[in-house]
Order: sequence, then C-alpha cells, then structure tokens
Amino acid sequence: MSSTTAGQVIKCRAAVAWEEGKPLAVEEVEVAPPEAGEVRLKILYTSLCHSDLYFWKSKGGRNLLFPRILGHEAAGIVESIGEGVTNLKPGDHVLPVFTGECGECRSCKSEESNLCEVLRLNTDTGVMLSDGKSRFSKDGKPIYHFLGTSTFSEYTVSHAKCVIKINPAAPLDKVCVLSCGICTGLGATLNVAKPKPGSTVAVFGLGAVGLAAAEGARLASASRIIGVDILSSRQEQAKSFGITDFVNPKDHDKPVQQVIVEMTDGGVDRALECTGHVEAAIAAFESVHDGWGVAVLVGLPSSEDEFKTKSINLLYERTVKGTFYGNYKPLSDIPSVVEKYMNKELELEKFITHSIPFSEINKSFDLMLKGESIRCLICMEG
Amino acid sequence: MSSTTAGQVIKCRAAVAWEEGKPLAVEEVEVAPPEAGEVRLKILYTSLCHSDLYFWKSKGGRNLLFPRILGHEAAGIVESIGEGVTNLKPGDHVLPVFTGECGECRSCKSEESNLCEVLRLNTDTGVMLSDGKSRFSKDGKPIYHFLGTSTFSEYTVSHAKCVIKINPAAPLDKVCVLSCGICTGLGATLNVAKPKPGSTVAVFGLGAVGLAAAEGARLASASRIIGVDILSSRQEQAKSFGITDFVNPKDHDKPVQQVIVEMTDGGVDRALECTGHVEAAIAAFESVHDGWGVAVLVGLPSSEDEFKTKSINLLYERTVKGTFYGNYKPLSDIPSVVEKYMNKELELEKFITHSIPFSEINKSFDLMLKGESIRCLICMEG
Repeated sequence: MSSTTAGQVIKCRAAVAWEEGKPLAVEEVEVAPPEAGEVRLKILYTSLCHSDLYFWKSKGGRNLLFPRILGHEAAGIVESIGEGVTNLKPGDHVLPVFTGECGECRSCKSEESNLCEVLRLNTDTGVMLSDGKSRFSKDGKPIYHFLGTSTFSEYTVSHAKCVIKINPAAPLDKVCVLSCGICTGLGATLNVAKPKPGSTVAVFGLGAVGLAAAEGARLASASRIIGVDILSSRQEQAKSFGITDFVNPKDHDKPVQQVIVEMTDGGVDRALECTGHVEAAIAAFESVHDGWGVAVLVGLPSSEDEFKTKSINLLYERTVKGTFYGNYKPLSDIPSVVEKYMNKELELEKFITHSIPFSEINKSFDLMLKGESIRCLICMEG
Repeated sequence: MSSTTAGQVIKCRAAVAWEEGKPLAVEEVEVAPPEAGEVRLKILYTSLCHSDLYFWKSKGGRNLLFPRILGHEAAGIVESIGEGVTNLKPGDHVLPVFTGECGECRSCKSEESNLCEVLRLNTDTGVMLSDGKSRFSKDGKPIYHFLGTSTFSEYTVSHAKCVIKINPAAPLDKVCVLSCGICTGLGATLNVAKPKPGSTVAVFGLGAVGLAAAEGARLASASRIIGVDILSSRQEQAKSFGITDFVNPKDHDKPVQQVIVEMTDGGVDRALECTGHVEAAIAAFESVHDGWGVAVLVGLPSSEDEFKTKSINLLYERTVKGTFYGNYKPLSDIPSVVEKYMNKELELEKFITHSIPFSEINKSFDLMLKGESIRCLICMEG
C-alpha cells in the first residue's frame, strides 16, 4: 500500500460474481477513489459468511444484481479517505461492516437500537449512497457493490461510517471474523438473550453464528447449553464452544421443541435461532419456559417467511425478539469486542477452521455448502 | 358475618349460570366449610370482567361446565379458615384472585414469573384442588366453581394462596376492581412494556384492561398515548385515562398498523394489546418501531388463535411478549397496588361507571355487551 495511490484508480484483483450461483472469477478490476464521506480500504483478510451464499444464490429470486463483488466479513487497512472523513485516516486498521452508524439519526441517538436509519443493511442496492454509482468497473462497465462492503476484492470503497477503527495491535487474520458472524451470535446472547449465570440455553444451528451464540452463553456462565443441528458431525466440534448437550431433530419422531421441553422440565431459559429457517425460529420460541423464557431470532429469514405460533404460547409470558448484528452499534461497540479477544476472554482461533489463498476463494463456498468449515479465512495476498 | 358460621354449611344467595349464555339465576345455594388450606370468604363487592363473559358464552365450545358460579373480580372478608392456613385469619380484608402464589414452586421462587405451577389459572376445572370436589351445592347436587373464585355468591371458598390480604383501611367498593382487570392492564404497562418517560404508547382496546394499560402509560409519563378501538363512543371517556390520540380502525381503508406507523414516524415505542383478538395482537406488534419497539399481549386469545407476522419484522429488533395478570405475583405484589390507590397515585373511581345490586346482576352483562360500562360494581348486599 502506498499513499501514491490516493486519488488514483487502482487496478487490483477481485472475485466477481458474474451470474447467480456460478463460481466467482478472480480477475482484474478497477476501483475508483473514494468520494466525499467514503474511504478506500486495502483488504488483507476476508471470510465467507452465509449471507454471501444466500445472495450469491439469489435465494427467493430477489436481488438479481450481477455482476457483483460479494464479501462482507473482512479486515484491512485504510488506503485513502474522501473529503470530509474525520473518523478514519490512511493506515488505520479497520473492520468494514455491512451496516453503519451515522451517529446523527434517531436510532444512532437511541441507546437501544443499532439500526442506523441512514446506513442500515440494504441488500437491494449495489451502488454507493452518495451518487448512486459503483466504484468498481471492468473494461468501463460497472460492477455492483454488495452490502456496502464488497470485501472479495483487494481494494474496496465503503462509507466511512461503515468502517470500524480497531486496535492496531490486533491480528487482522483473527479479528477479521468479528465484522459479521461472530459478533452477530455473540451479541445475540450477551446483549439480547442475556442468560443469567446457571441458566439453560438452546442454540439452533451450529454454524459460526450459532457457535458464537454458544460462546456467549459460555462466557455468561450458562450451566447447560443445548446445541441443535441436523448435522450430527457438528456435535464433537461444538463441545469446545461450551455445548453440553446435542439434539439432532432428525433423531426424534416428535417436534424438537417437545424434546427440549422434556429434557429441561418445561423449557430452556433462553433460545437462540441461528439458522434463518422459520421452522427453527418457531421451534426455538416453543422451546422456552413460560414465565421467563426468551427466544432470540438471529438468522436471516427469507422475505416471505412467516413466524407463527399459538397466541397462548405468548400469553404465558414468553418473549420473542429479533436481533441484528448482535445489537452492537458497530463503530461504538465493536472495538471493545476486539479487546475481549486481546484480553483472551473471547476465543477466536477455534472459529477459523480453514485458511486458503484468495485465488482459491471458490473452495470456501464448497466448504460452507458441505458444512465442513466454521470460518474459512481467505488471505488476499495469495 | 359471625364466627358462629365457622365449620357450618352456609346457605346464601348466588347467581348460578345453569346453561351456556343464559341469564344467571340468583337463588339460594349451600356453601360447605373450607377444607385444609382453604378459606371461606364473605364477598361484599364483585364486578363483571370479560373473562366471565367469555366462559359464560363458552366461546370455542370448550369449558362446558354447567351449572357454574362465575365471577372472579371481587373484594370481601375472610369468614373462616381451613386447617393449616397461616396467611389469613377471619376478619381479614381480602381480594380473591383467579391465580395464586404457593410460594414454593420454581415460578414462585423465580423473580421473573408469576405463573405459579400449583395454582395458576385453570379454566377447565370446576372443583377444588385438594379433593376434586365442589364446595357449592343446591338440593344436594354440586355446582361447579370458576377460576377458584366464584365471586358471584355471597359466600365462596378459595385456596388460601389465591386470596390477597390487603390494607383493612382500603374501601372494598373501589379496590375490588384490582383483583383482575385493572391490575392486568396496569401491570402490563408498568411491569412489562415499561415505557420510558416521553415515549409513545398505543393501546388496542379501550375496555377496562386497555384503559388501565393507558393509566399505566400516564403514570409512566408517556408523551403520547394512542387509543385504538372500533367503538368511537369510547374516545371521549378515554381522555381521562391519558389517551391523547384516538384511532378507529373502521375509519381507515388501510391496516391500522400502517395508520399508526405513519402517525408516529415509524411506529410507537410500546404497544399493548387488550382485546384478545389475534388480529389486534398482530396489528399491535406491527405498530411498534424497529430497534426498540415492544408489543405486549394482554388479552386472552382463543385457544386456536395463531399469532403470525413476517419473520423480518422480528429480525429488525422488535419484541413481542405476553403477560398474565400484569406480571404481578398476587399475594406479594398486589397489596402495594392497593397502596398506590390509597396514596392517590392511581385513580380507581373513573373505572367504576355503574353500580347495581346483586339481584340485578344480569344488567352488568348487558352493559358490557353494549360496551357502555368500564366496570359495573355489583353490591352483594342489594
């Protein structure tokens, strides 16, 4: 990285999704300089998250924006900044994030919400907010952005308020995973479900987000953490994340919520839904104890999915609530999660099961589709 | 009331529901003495609550227990106590309640739940817990109890842990209404929705429970309290309960949740559903703001009702939760609500719009069915 690139178009490698569901093509693209309020980042590490897969496959027939550069879980360094940017400077170590924190809107000013009204998740747009244009192109033709991050590129442009400045001593090849999935699961438990010490917690889905939710329950000193997954192969691995019991719904001829209610004398204290499947959301809710049980929905549902349950289940003092990015305000809160890792309170190494060079990025899709990886680190240098 | 009745069968007047939906018949019945753990109460005042109406009409075809003595909102004095009763003595001023607090179960020992595992609401039983028998009879044939209270009788028998001892200075013709509806609505706001000062609150249904929820919002210093009801005649009356805005869904050609979201720039901070209709529950939930909105379901739904909403509505950090009796633990918490009235913090007079003698009890059904009364006090002496 050199300051001589500031203000210039940068030619670099990016993994372009030319068509829905087709392997990404790593090829040279052009990345325009940041406009006012934007920054250009050199990405050093990125990793694949389920949401990339979801939009790559255009699940539900929406979001047919191609060609597009996917990727939203990453770590890098600020290469240059646009006019008026004050929260970042070239050389800062950063995590780009798929949501933002303008600091000015009603949500940002509220203590309770991290859903910035200006910069919140927008899966339907593929261009920059300021001018409605893309900063990526190839042979003069634009390539769409994804979630304002597009980290499957050696360089990318983001809104400055969607980029988290972190401790420069933090190893980027580890804290990379905090920019989406791990914080989503961890925060869902620590900030939203808030299990008391000694309580019982069920986690639906033992991918990276679910395991991070379990890690949160472990940090919160839950006495029993029940992992639910249709892949029994995940049971062994889950133990190091604090999972004490494992339930594969396929092993039972009754609904999984009934299995859990029976295992726990009336239901768990907290349940976290980390699959994005609405059936699992309903099962998670119906697994919690009356009087105090709280189900937290974390997984991204399909746009048409309907959550439904008997009204009487709610009346008996059960709660269901959703969370987005673990209720963390990205710029304000994530640096403290990085510190949790630096203080050896939070373990990140166990999430990173694979590591591959950027040129082999399509392998990470295979690993995720097979359920073999938790997180596959993609090293941009390779 | 005389201690000479202790241990004796008491003959007194009761309003018997002989058949589903037919006017009650005020006639002489026999009330057996309390067994171990029970108390016999002289009821002085009672009032009709929607749940009486619901079970009188046997909505949904369930609970066909007739003949039955309805009534569960009342105030009275302990006439005699059964063996082993230590929390009450003859002469105590009390509110009987449709739920209980054994003090020993997991729920009673939890700070969060008021759903006593032993004595919680049971609408399907019509007999006493200890021996499975009724204490009421006429001409030797048993008459069923209702909710463990059966307050439409000059004397009734209850489980001692379903009877709240209150300040003997409290006027029983006022605090009578705290034994069900008013505490249900008030507690839903103060204990569950917990609006912050200055926040916006929507209340669906402006019957007694909804107006009590509004009264809670007023006590919590909400800045805007939106009342929703299909009876526009309720608008004027509602103002004294703090309602600042009124919406009749029938006046709009779009869903009421959309009307409220537009009125409030994105939704209210809190919504309380006090009708028991599942469509209102869904509308209440979809009326709350993302990021922090909480919908509290208070109304008793039909057993088959399904709450359903797009999963994405939950994901954006909205919460829905149910409450039962305003989350008050009856024996522990209600005496302090009585004190709120005694301190003139809480106003009860405005809830009591009508007063009739016991002999005219069927009038209270007419008044409620027409939506004319908030609470109609029934004076047992008359």
